[in-house]
Amino acid sequence: MIAGIDIGGTSSKLGLVDGDRIVARTRIPTVGHADAHAFADALAAAVRTLVGEAALTGVGIGAPNGNQHSGTIVQAPNLPWREDVPLAAMLRERLGVPCTLGNDANAAALGEWRYGAGRGIDDLLVVTLGTGLGSGLIVDGRLLLGPFGNAGELGHTMVVIDGRACTCGRAGCLEAYVSIRGMRETFRELGGDAEVLRGEGVMPIADAARAGSSEALQTFRSTARWLSVGLSNAVAITTPRRIVLFGGIARNGDLLLGPLRERFAHDLLSIYHGQVDLLLSELPEDDAGILGAAALGAH
Amino acid sequence: MIAGIDIGGTSSKLGLVDGDRIVARTRIPTVGHADAHAFADALAAAVRTLVGEAALTGVGIGAPNGNQHSGTIVQAPNLPWREDVPLAAMLRERLGVPCTLGNDANAAALGEWRYGAGRGIDDLLVVTLGTGLGSGLIVDGRLLLGPFGNAGELGHTMVVIDGRACTCGRAGCLEAYVSIRGMRETFRELGGDAEVLRGEGVMPIADAARAGSSEALQTFRSTARWLSVGLSNAVAITTPRRIVLFGGIARNGDLLLGPLRERFAHDLLSIYHGQVDLLLSELPEDDAGILGAAALGAH
Repeated sequence: MIAGIDIGGTSSKLGLVDGDRIVARTRIPTVGHADAHAFADALAAAVRTLVGEAALTGVGIGAPNGNQHSGTIVQAPNLPWREDVPLAAMLRERLGVPCTLGNDANAAALGEWRYGAGRGIDDLLVVTLGTGLGSGLIVDGRLLLGPFGNAGELGHTMVVIDGRACTCGRAGCLEAYVSIRGMRETFRELGGDAEVLRGEGVMPIADAARAGSSEALQTFRSTARWLSVGLSNAVAITTPRRIVLFGGIARNGDLLLGPLRERFAHDLLSIYHGQVDLLLSELPEDDAGILGAAALGAH
Repeated sequence: MIAGIDIGGTSSKLGLVDGDRIVARTRIPTVGHADAHAFADALAAAVRTLVGEAALTGVGIGAPNGNQHSGTIVQAPNLPWREDVPLAAMLRERLGVPCTLGNDANAAALGEWRYGAGRGIDDLLVVTLGTGLGSGLIVDGRLLLGPFGNAGELGHTMVVIDGRACTCGRAGCLEAYVSIRGMRETFRELGGDAEVLRGEGVMPIADAARAGSSEALQTFRSTARWLSVGLSNAVAITTPRRIVLFGGIARNGDLLLGPLRERFAHDLLSIYHGQVDLLLSELPEDDAGILGAAALGAH
């Protein structure tokens, strides 16, 4: 039994994974603890309750800005702690089993590789589309971490020179275009109905597109255009055999995937034609974070 | 003793490598043979002459469009043969020792890793700037080939959406801007003196820049701008610890490297600041192809 912990900005999901199934689950708030030690105490208590009399062999933790080499969460802007938190060591102390902490996008990649649409594919790119654009790469059967433990930042490849400002302080990053924030900005730039943007996230733009709004439809087509460039560039560098898209934005039926497949077939270097699949994640969204974290723990 | 063979468009260089030194060398024409078998006969004869009474343990061959998985040269546009040439097998038959054939850019990467500016750096990107823009990646101590044997095509990452036409049939590729052809086109677009372009290659533009031509200086600055984006994007995906630039274009003193270092410091994602070196190749240009090929043979 592996415990998978998915650290989120407001709450953290925990699950007990047996083989490829989640057999028990719970969640605790991420915010509101006195300090990181109190948070680790709460996580350990929740894991103990979940496990009961079963035998726990390891813990995997997926976290924003998680560094797998050091096992620490490195100043994640959306988490409550300003210092680096060595959460892997803190849980190992409390639970007495091996704990592995990694980046949430890498956890998603491992989850897809082990449990999802990437099963058996040893050269895999998993792209998580949400608040930001995260990515994880399996290269020749190994998770690509790089010498500093922070490889695979596809969201911060530049697709437009001197383009939109990005939260990373630079300009023109893929994430500034292909993310919830990016899509809302595209819709605004295209002169889309301001009323639509009163709703949160991308769902209202998708609803408007289904109702025939040309600005909303164009928002999805433009997003597909930028994403296709980013994916094609990643293919030219590491040649994954399969790309799996994960996250709410991708799950809008053919609104994104339709134009994306068309652009991608066009943008892909000819020597790679017919060699790279583009698929949506098959994992239920609520389970993916837990399974991905468990895959880290089992790695 | 390893024989290193560097297949070029007009002539092929051969060298016998002992440790990290070329102890004997020769060259034969690549063109003018009846067919690929006759060319293989000529190569084998040249290797035998070079080796004499010494003990040959392996042969490495670097070739344009070389595929290391299959050991074949795959329809290289600048070589005389229209069919795929299984040159590794053809030389193994003729010489009775293991032969490894690979892409010339990958050979350059292995050469820098084993003999050059990348010694001891297990996460390395080597970029060859010449007629085209080639690249080879060492990731976690292994040459990145990808499942199809053709990974590391940095020259065909797109840096300008709907940009310049590229020889690959697409638009906006890094190679369309950062290569001999690309730099000449930039100089032309900037309204540079047509007289300068009567000379071949990039050298006349470099001479004009040294003489104070603002269009020529801007050509180098613009080239640095595009190259910096391509390099930063590669870093965001695989995080090499060092980048080595190789080839004539890079060897123009500070004309390219000056603005490139400045842009690269700016374009690099902040989490990678201070972690990625940018160096010029130290290998003599005439030796690099042979040493790189030998590194393939020793791999």
